[in-house]
Formats: sequence, structure tokens, C-alpha cells
Amino acid sequence: MASIKVHGTSFFTNVSRVMACLHEKELDFEFIPVDLINGEQKKEPYLSINPFGKVPSFEDGDIRIFESRAITNYIAKEYSDRGTQLLYTSGKKLAEMLQWMEVETHQYEPAVTRLMFECIGKPRYLGLPTDTGVVEESEAKLSKILDVYEARLKQCKYLAGEDFTLADLHHTPTVSYLVQIPSSRKLIDSHPHVSSWVADITTGPAWAKVLALEKQAQILHAL
Amino acid sequence: MASIKVHGTSFFTNVSRVMACLHEKELDFEFIPVDLINGEQKKEPYLSINPFGKVPSFEDGDIRIFESRAITNYIAKEYSDRGTQLLYTSGKKLAEMLQWMEVETHQYEPAVTRLMFECIGKPRYLGLPTDTGVVEESEAKLSKILDVYEARLKQCKYLAGEDFTLADLHHTPTVSYLVQIPSSRKLIDSHPHVSSWVADITTGPAWAKVLALEKQAQILHAL
Repeated sequence: MASIKVHGTSFFTNVSRVMACLHEKELDFEFIPVDLINGEQKKEPYLSINPFGKVPSFEDGDIRIFESRAITNYIAKEYSDRGTQLLYTSGKKLAEMLQWMEVETHQYEPAVTRLMFECIGKPRYLGLPTDTGVVEESEAKLSKILDVYEARLKQCKYLAGEDFTLADLHHTPTVSYLVQIPSSRKLIDSHPHVSSWVADITTGPAWAKVLALEKQAQILHAL
Repeated sequence: MASIKVHGTSFFTNVSRVMACLHEKELDFEFIPVDLINGEQKKEPYLSINPFGKVPSFEDGDIRIFESRAITNYIAKEYSDRGTQLLYTSGKKLAEMLQWMEVETHQYEPAVTRLMFECIGKPRYLGLPTDTGVVEESEAKLSKILDVYEARLKQCKYLAGEDFTLADLHHTPTVSYLVQIPSSRKLIDSHPHVSSWVADITTGPAWAKVLALEKQAQILHAL
């Protein structure tokens, strides 16, 4: 049995962020589905791992933590000698990587989360109509954010420099949903360097393994 | 001239987070006020450091970055041999520190930001009335969050273990405002371990230096 365990739901972006990181590091892990529909995440024993009752949670031997970006940072540091080197460790490269990781959290993600909820979550999972006003407002914000990304990605291949790091990987799960929204896809494509970067970070072998698990879960769900 | 520069406004929590970290590391720096009232942060040359037009921004020689938590992480890693050791670097301690840093960002801060805006920002700086409904809702959320903090701080002195780390320091600026709101102060005091921790992280010599600069700015502003 693998000592690494991921508790979660495969199509949740915070969960696939962790799995993408594990695949980049070529680490075996056990995926333990959490039954969100029946509120398993809000009951014991799940709450003993994550008292906020959210997915994912993560175990590595006797280490038990939650929050997806904490988990990816832990994996990248603790298993630095394996798979893809996902971190810069000093100087200017470290500084810029840290900055772009925080940009993902504080600038990019709030706009994208609202778009995913309005354009995918509401119609696909909740049977509710999309609020077009919210979509327009969020895409206006996202457009300005992507202008900043475009200027950066003109300078270097990835956000932190010439290497793929956690600063990029943290975007992959949400950007994979974003390109499924036609108006957001158009917005991305109007930024050519962002568009190439999106294509790059959503087509690697590690991410393909995450998508394969999602596909499998969808098939099981449809049976 | 110091090679480290902090651009910002002294009473902004994101700015004082960076200054608290620099003082913990006993690093000299130049503080460069940004005239937010006249929109200096939305114009060049400021935008060339921070294209999102927000404070703080940070310079260390030829390194120029923004986002307060990226800056503190950079300082703590790059100057690990100076002042307070603010990081755990491996294993369980690293994992738990990373987790609590993300808890600050994703659980604690959203609730506290709304409270600060309603109870301090609106009446003190904008001349607007506080929305008591938003306050009640935010304090209900905060109460549940503090229950989780209380359980953790029963186990260890600081969030990541027995040592003060960035996981604690990142809370100091916002918690310093929170205790100025009577109902939030009451909420904190109903969690005895949280209350002791708040007293601890807001009374060290590094934080006293941040407060002294804020006091100085207030006096200059009143002249």
C-alpha cells in the first residue's frame, strides 16, 4: 500500500492540483474518493484530517495536511530529488517564482473561480442559469490580468523563468476548465503568449494522468 | 543607501507584513511611501514594479517583486542565517507550517478582511456606516475558524509548532486590527489559547518597530 494518500474528488481543481504535482514527481499514491454528495467531508473521521471539511487532504506516512498549495509545496520540497524539478531555491528566480505563485492565488484565481462557477458549475452540476453580468465583470477583470501574464510570458517561457515550476502547475487545473468556456477561450487566444503557455501546461504527461482518472470517474458515475 | 526598499503605505496590512518580516531578520531597509490618494500606484513608474497597481512592492538590489507573502517567503529563505528563524525546512514541521500559511490565506483572511473593511475602513476612512449584517455573518465564519485555531494552539505554542514562523507572522497585521473591533475582540477572548497567541505575536520587538512607523506616519498626517 502506498504511504501517500490523497482524499478528494477527482474533478475538483484543488484535488487535481495535488495529483498533477505527484505525477510530476513520479510518486505513487492511493486516491481515496470522498463522497461530497453525502457530506462525508463534514463528518468524522474526515474532519480529523481537515477540520474545515474541504477537499483535498493528504497523507504521507504520519504527516497529514490539507490545502492544495501547501501540499504541492511540501511534495516539491520533500521530494526535490525526484521527477520534474518544480522549484527555484534562491535569488532572483526564487523571488519571481514566489511572486507568481501568489499572483495565481490573489489575482488570477478569484476571477477564474467565479467564471467556472457561473459557466460550468451552475449549468452542468446545479441546473441553474448563468448570470451573464457576473461573467462579463469577471472576464473584464481576467482580461487585465491576462495582459500582465502576456507581458511576462513574452519575456520567458514560464511564469518564473525558463523552467516549469509550481507557479505554472498551480494554474493547470483551473485553466483546463477556463478553456472550456467559449468567451474565456477567446480571451486567452487574444493573448498569444498566454495561449501557447496554456497549451503547454495542459498537455504534459503528468496532467494527462490526472485527466485519465477524471475520465474513469465520469465513466463509473455514468454506469 | 539600503539595497532593500519597501514601497507602500505604513498602515496597510500587506505592507506591515513585509516590514515585520524585515525587522525579524534585523535587515535595514528604506521605506518609500506611495501616495495612494493621488493614485501613484496606478501610474508609471510604480506600475513597472507592480503591474497590478497595488502595495507593497519590494526591491533587493536588482530583484523587484510584489505580493506580501511572496516577499516574506523570499526574505525568510534568502536571509535564513539572520535574525529570527522563520521557517521549518523539512518533514512534518515543514508540512504543517505550509498548511497553516495557506489556512491564513484561504480561511482566516477573507473573513477578517470583510470585518476590517466594515468596522474600521468604512467608518474611519470612508465615512460610511458599518453593515451589521455583514459583520454578523463574518464573525460567525470567524468563530468557526477560531475554533480550529483553538484546537491547534492547545497542542503547540505557535501554529506550525513550538517556534514562531511565517505562519504566525502573516496573521500579525490583520489580527492587530481585529482586536480593535470590540465584538471581534470578544470572539478572540472566548478562545483562550488563541487569545494568548494573539497577545504573543502582537507584542514582539519587530512588530513594535512597525507600529512605531505607523504612529510616526499618523503624526505627520495630522500636522
